[in-house]
Amino acid sequence: MTLLSGTFARGGAAAAVSDDAWFRALLAVEAALARAAARTGLVPATAADAVTAACAHPERLDLATVVARAADAGNPVPPLVRVLQDAVGERDAGAVHVGATSQDVLDSALLLMARDAIAAVDADLAAAAETVAELARTHRDDVLAGRTLMQQALPTTFGLKAAGWLAGLDGARLRLAEVVAALPVQYGGAVGTLAASGGAGVALRAALAEELQLTSTAVPWFTVRLPVADLAGALGAAAGVVATVAVDVVLLAQTEVAEVAEVGEGRGGSSAMPHKRNPVAAVSARACARRAPGLVATLLSAMEQEHERAAGAWHSEWPTLTELLTTVGSAASWLAESLRGLRPDPARMAATAAAAAEGPLAGALAEALAPTLGKGAAHDAAAAAVREARDSGRPLAEVVATRTDVDVRAVLAAGRPDVGEAGAQVDAALAEHAALTEGRP
Amino acid sequence: MTLLSGTFARGGAAAAVSDDAWFRALLAVEAALARAAARTGLVPATAADAVTAACAHPERLDLATVVARAADAGNPVPPLVRVLQDAVGERDAGAVHVGATSQDVLDSALLLMARDAIAAVDADLAAAAETVAELARTHRDDVLAGRTLMQQALPTTFGLKAAGWLAGLDGARLRLAEVVAALPVQYGGAVGTLAASGGAGVALRAALAEELQLTSTAVPWFTVRLPVADLAGALGAAAGVVATVAVDVVLLAQTEVAEVAEVGEGRGGSSAMPHKRNPVAAVSARACARRAPGLVATLLSAMEQEHERAAGAWHSEWPTLTELLTTVGSAASWLAESLRGLRPDPARMAATAAAAAEGPLAGALAEALAPTLGKGAAHDAAAAAVREARDSGRPLAEVVATRTDVDVRAVLAAGRPDVGEAGAQVDAALAEHAALTEGRP
Amino acid sequence: MTLLSGTFARGGAAAAVSDDAWFRALLAVEAALARAAARTGLVPATAADAVTAACAHPERLDLATVVARAADAGNPVPPLVRVLQDAVGERDAGAVHVGATSQDVLDSALLLMARDAIAAVDADLAAAAETVAELARTHRDDVLAGRTLMQQALPTTFGLKAAGWLAGLDGARLRLAEVVAALPVQYGGAVGTLAASGGAGVALRAALAEELQLTSTAVPWFTVRLPVADLAGALGAAAGVVATVAVDVVLLAQTEVAEVAEVGEGRGGSSAMPHKRNPVAAVSARACARRAPGLVATLLSAMEQEHERAAGAWHSEWPTLTELLTTVGSAASWLAESLRGLRPDPARMAATAAAAAEGPLAGALAEALAPTLGKGAAHDAAAAAVREARDSGRPLAEVVATRTDVDVRAVLAAGRPDVGEAGAQVDAALAEHAALTEGRP
Amino acid sequence: MTLLSGTFARGGAAAAVSDDAWFRALLAVEAALARAAARTGLVPATAADAVTAACAHPERLDLATVVARAADAGNPVPPLVRVLQDAVGERDAGAVHVGATSQDVLDSALLLMARDAIAAVDADLAAAAETVAELARTHRDDVLAGRTLMQQALPTTFGLKAAGWLAGLDGARLRLAEVVAALPVQYGGAVGTLAASGGAGVALRAALAEELQLTSTAVPWFTVRLPVADLAGALGAAAGVVATVAVDVVLLAQTEVAEVAEVGEGRGGSSAMPHKRNPVAAVSARACARRAPGLVATLLSAMEQEHERAAGAWHSEWPTLTELLTTVGSAASWLAESLRGLRPDPARMAATAAAAAEGPLAGALAEALAPTLGKGAAHDAAAAAVREARDSGRPLAEVVATRTDVDVRAVLAAGRPDVGEAGAQVDAALAEHAALTEGRP
Repeated sequence: MTLLSGTFARGGAAAAVSDDAWFRALLAVEAALARAAARTGLVPATAADAVTAACAHPERLDLATVVARAADAGNPVPPLVRVLQDAVGERDAGAVHVGATSQDVLDSALLLMARDAIAAVDADLAAAAETVAELARTHRDDVLAGRTLMQQALPTTFGLKAAGWLAGLDGARLRLAEVVAALPVQYGGAVGTLAASGGAGVALRAALAEELQLTSTAVPWFTVRLPVADLAGALGAAAGVVATVAVDVVLLAQTEVAEVAEVGEGRGGSSAMPHKRNPVAAVSARACARRAPGLVATLLSAMEQEHERAAGAWHSEWPTLTELLTTVGSAASWLAESLRGLRPDPARMAATAAAAAEGPLAGALAEALAPTLGKGAAHDAAAAAVREARDSGRPLAEVVATRTDVDVRAVLAAGRPDVGEAGAQVDAALAEHAALTEGRP
Repeated sequence: MTLLSGTFARGGAAAAVSDDAWFRALLAVEAALARAAARTGLVPATAADAVTAACAHPERLDLATVVARAADAGNPVPPLVRVLQDAVGERDAGAVHVGATSQDVLDSALLLMARDAIAAVDADLAAAAETVAELARTHRDDVLAGRTLMQQALPTTFGLKAAGWLAGLDGARLRLAEVVAALPVQYGGAVGTLAASGGAGVALRAALAEELQLTSTAVPWFTVRLPVADLAGALGAAAGVVATVAVDVVLLAQTEVAEVAEVGEGRGGSSAMPHKRNPVAAVSARACARRAPGLVATLLSAMEQEHERAAGAWHSEWPTLTELLTTVGSAASWLAESLRGLRPDPARMAATAAAAAEGPLAGALAEALAPTLGKGAAHDAAAAAVREARDSGRPLAEVVATRTDVDVRAVLAAGRPDVGEAGAQVDAALAEHAALTEGRP
Repeated sequence: MTLLSGTFARGGAAAAVSDDAWFRALLAVEAALARAAARTGLVPATAADAVTAACAHPERLDLATVVARAADAGNPVPPLVRVLQDAVGERDAGAVHVGATSQDVLDSALLLMARDAIAAVDADLAAAAETVAELARTHRDDVLAGRTLMQQALPTTFGLKAAGWLAGLDGARLRLAEVVAALPVQYGGAVGTLAASGGAGVALRAALAEELQLTSTAVPWFTVRLPVADLAGALGAAAGVVATVAVDVVLLAQTEVAEVAEVGEGRGGSSAMPHKRNPVAAVSARACARRAPGLVATLLSAMEQEHERAAGAWHSEWPTLTELLTTVGSAASWLAESLRGLRPDPARMAATAAAAAEGPLAGALAEALAPTLGKGAAHDAAAAAVREARDSGRPLAEVVATRTDVDVRAVLAAGRPDVGEAGAQVDAALAEHAALTEGRP
Repeated sequence: MTLLSGTFARGGAAAAVSDDAWFRALLAVEAALARAAARTGLVPATAADAVTAACAHPERLDLATVVARAADAGNPVPPLVRVLQDAVGERDAGAVHVGATSQDVLDSALLLMARDAIAAVDADLAAAAETVAELARTHRDDVLAGRTLMQQALPTTFGLKAAGWLAGLDGARLRLAEVVAALPVQYGGAVGTLAASGGAGVALRAALAEELQLTSTAVPWFTVRLPVADLAGALGAAAGVVATVAVDVVLLAQTEVAEVAEVGEGRGGSSAMPHKRNPVAAVSARACARRAPGLVATLLSAMEQEHERAAGAWHSEWPTLTELLTTVGSAASWLAESLRGLRPDPARMAATAAAAAEGPLAGALAEALAPTLGKGAAHDAAAAAVREARDSGRPLAEVVATRTDVDVRAVLAAGRPDVGEAGAQVDAALAEHAALTEGRP
């Protein structure tokens, strides 16, 4: 229970990279390593069982000593190995950390945690996507003023807007799933030769990968950090999708627009201003998502790693990746929460779109004038009519109605809201979403 | 020919995003759009032919006017459309920019350029990979001191180091290829409804995608920028791989290490110091690669885009993505150049590794002591022996030889350089590389 | 004249870091170095005059060769020195590049260019500040709905908003001025010892600093890059101020808000939508400003430089700093342009603020209830009244008027727009601005 | 006691931004606000005393409720105000949070914490600077091979290298001190007008600034975030200086260079390799410093804030700034620790420099040949001699000795190590350091 995490952290990702989770993941790797060593004949099965048993009970291990000595070692694995060896006793100590180096255990554990954290991120993204799909279905044909460069442009539908969000959320989930499915085990020994693995290192690596349900590799990736870059890229992309949905919610919830409201039990009040209802969940989603790009840059900068183990860049990944997982997870969770409480106001949307009908009308006028004036001059003439309406305070329709150089009735008809193939596109996005979600258990 | 690009820009990526390339790409999209409109029955084939013909000759178009008016329009497409309409004449002007908005053309063109630039990046990465594969084969078993945290650790081979580079370069290429294969067309009209596409918008989008060999989409991705994020992520990862290979070259080329030299005609001299031979190509590769993470962060930050078209974030992508493509392309090209001129010195490597044999020897001593002292105390005793040797200035072997608590002969034998399964791992990496390159035309 | 710079580049900063400017700056340093060497007695005054004369005519120098050979040397200075030596002839060649290394000349030249570019940035920031000061004066007391988290909150004034912008622009200028005033010369020779400066290196450094109007230093700053970090920080801060003003303009110009419009000759039209008037200048300012943070991060990452000259990080600064200067300069110029054409609509502001008066009214109700209910419960009761008004569609004043537990007349009076000390604060900001601008020639 | 912070966090900065510190800082602002309100006559002195007393005992406040409700409010201030009001009782509740909005309290508290954290950062930077000054004094004239682009170049001294580090550390401290001295109070009320401050808002702001020893401002800086940008810039610069010193330590400690060693009780061992002694403190300093640039970019990106209070960007500052303070503080602390245990090896430095004397010798040869061959050709001839020596395996001196076209004795004499004005520059840097440290209490 902390102030800052109390303010912003949401969803399961933060727990998946907690200190407890770190220990569990490190121990999971050590246990799997012992079992893999037994499978490849390097240690007795009974010794591997002893290690597995010891790793299953972190509460019985002297983790305080591990923490105390981690800084001096440069990472927590050396003291953890010592503690584990003590725990299993001298007879089975040889089954601990077989042929491994600290980075083997730490990198593999980091990816296990990332996988768990991303499962939590994905659950929130999936929840957000379901809510959005429902919005797209419900409001498939509700007309909304489309806005470009923050100016009302031509009419679209709230369904199509939601379908765009849906495609983004589904796309972000796909990327994360691809990255997670390809996460590789790390195993190479001190400098990558597998020299301490009794000639069975390649086989042990494959067995370890199986135990941990990670992929195996031809060579270690100690200083070639593509798996970390992949995580960074997919998480950064997911944050960007969350941010773009959240900013739309914030903009649509503006007092002057009021086309959606975010309703949440007890949320969004203001101490100084009792009349306000802030879209707090969307604001929080945005706040969390904005922290991602800088963290991604740090991870990419850290890819320049020296020789067989980097002198600093590797170490900088740990807090950065855990921060990234936490903040993207929180962003996804806040977005799901925001969308869950989202109340669209189709009547308000329709009213605004009608007032904005000036846009299509001007377009229709330009089109009608094009055959006689040419496309360019027709465009200019329509712009002049818009200015005339504005300056005189009359509706554009009235200005158009006075013209003698076009078929006024046809122009006014053409000026009616036309949302083109919005509906068909919503249906297509929903079909893709259904295919995606059915393809998953 | 400019000073700064003269200093650093290399390879084909810079040309692929030049101003000329921008115009060609914009015109390619407009031409494809006209043909797609003809295929879907919206305009006559003859008109589409006229547009295609006009687009094939940028030198006949008044591009100076386009440039002059681009800033006022906020992007170059509106004046380009005007110029194109003038070029094809009034009869066929209706086949220009059918149902499209500026962002349709600009986004599609940006991805075409990215595809071309990445083809150039990939050519240099492929060349680097081939050179590295040859290094791995040639030096498969050449012993080298492995180094962790910049300290000599245990022996490895130069072949295994090269195999690690190879896996990184191949991995970077795979990611770029996947992203390029999935790049989508942009087509939605003013606010994404396809309202100006005469009811044939969805079909036209598919046809346009075919014409440009891009993928189609269920909905426009105007403000959901996953394709840009994918490019950013894969380019950032490629830069990181280049950087990590380049830093290894720079470190191995240090005067005190001298295990490789970078040889290049006329390159690397120093005005003040005629005796110096700088690894200029590797240094330049590193310089170019280091610019990537910040640019990636800018693109990810720009994913938060408002409503149906962003008010600034979209525009910030253009120079950022072109810079990113250019600098990653240059980094890849410099790396290929550096590797082409790389001269490993296996004799020097072997000599250094022999001097470093103290490492395995200490390990062997620890192992020999473990049965009697326990693993922890044995480790401490071996460390003490290393300190004793250092403090007395004697070789560690001499100190070990005086011990009575171990089988000295066996320990000294076990202390011989052992590179474990380095060779087998090199073979596996080369096999994966062969499979990858054979799988491509 | 290029497409991309045609779209976005504005103001004088881009020209100040062009390739021409690079050559002029490098030559300015070489000329000053020759004069400084003459002043310290290392070379004859006549020779220094010859170097100065040669540097004054770049058009007579074979710069094509410099460009061609820069890449091989890793930087343009070695070939430039050769060309200069040839230009002055053998007798005076000894006065070229006295005691210097490439980095002495390149770093000093880079800072000269930065100073020139920042002068251009500052001119645009100053123009923007003057316009904003005028807005603050003119609209000192024009009531405007204050908005927090994008929701209407309590009334403020447009004058106070403009005063906040003014403080930001003035603050950004002050930071840039402080950094520019402290920019140091670089002079140390090959590895910083001044060994090639004939025992007069320290004196020569001071003389060179005087010639270039830079500050001198106790030691070279080859790999301690505080001056570059200072530039990066101040430019990043300036970009942030520009962005925050620009986003306010974009938000206030929204169709639904319409409290300002950006008017520019021929600017902001839309090809597809003749009725639109986009705030193109503010959008472009935002686009340019958003590119700064990533570039700042690259420069800060590049501070980790090795030994006496870095192997890549130094080189990565050149394109990054010039991009940063260019994009911040363009952002400032676009903002000045946007503000120049800004048309506030005080009537619209007043109307919106009146409709928003519900806010103060709710506050007054809460205050009136506090003595009897306690502050907390009073707040809740006021919030309930707001909900009741909303749900029933009646004005809040009507709901309040029915209450018997407060002095209704007093509450309604207290609910009148109250902009507190907005005017006094505007006056204070204008006074600080006047002091700042008077303090400058 | 946590795993990750156990691994890396050091120094006092982390504690200065802990959750406890957050509460203490928020309460310090509320207490100061009450006293300032009393001083300006808005509340009775007794009420202010009651608030101050309540704020002095966080352990008596129901902070669990504050944490629980912070997320719903979007920040912790609204529930904290409620808890404080309850704590002081109804009579004095009016003296709580006078005229303030959440951002007033949160921004002011954030800067108080930043000031405290920077005091801790500065203590470690000062300790590092003192150690470095001592190194510069002790090793003022110890010759060291200067290295450019990671290649041995000409001789310098370890004293001059340390003097460069010293100038960087002192410069970083100066920047931090300037920023801290200018940190401004935040006070404006709901939208900045001071409307709830009973006409005494401007006076209250000044009094509050005095109470907190912050500077006052003409207007609030709610969305003009220069103070945050200043902190970010100065912290990023400090991180860069730490990183560049740390990378030098790591490079000099390489097994092959061995010119320094980092000695620390129990630190730097390796589980797999008992013979290794890793420079763990320098590696950790580097790891911590590398996280800064991305965090700085996030803070600069967050400067684009909307209207009178931002919808997300503001909130993203809190965890980012606290992370930045923590990681820069840890970097500084690790660097101080590394330097404290640094053991330079002047004999090894001298030996390497002697072997590197080839550099000056080549330079001397070039100079001797210049009068007859011209500067360019002389340079080429010297480079050829270096190649000849390398190819034949003979020392360069031997090759030079066979020449008949120069005064061999003079050339060989000139080729002796010459460290120019290294010593004088060290003295100058130490004098500047002394002036700086004497200028501070």
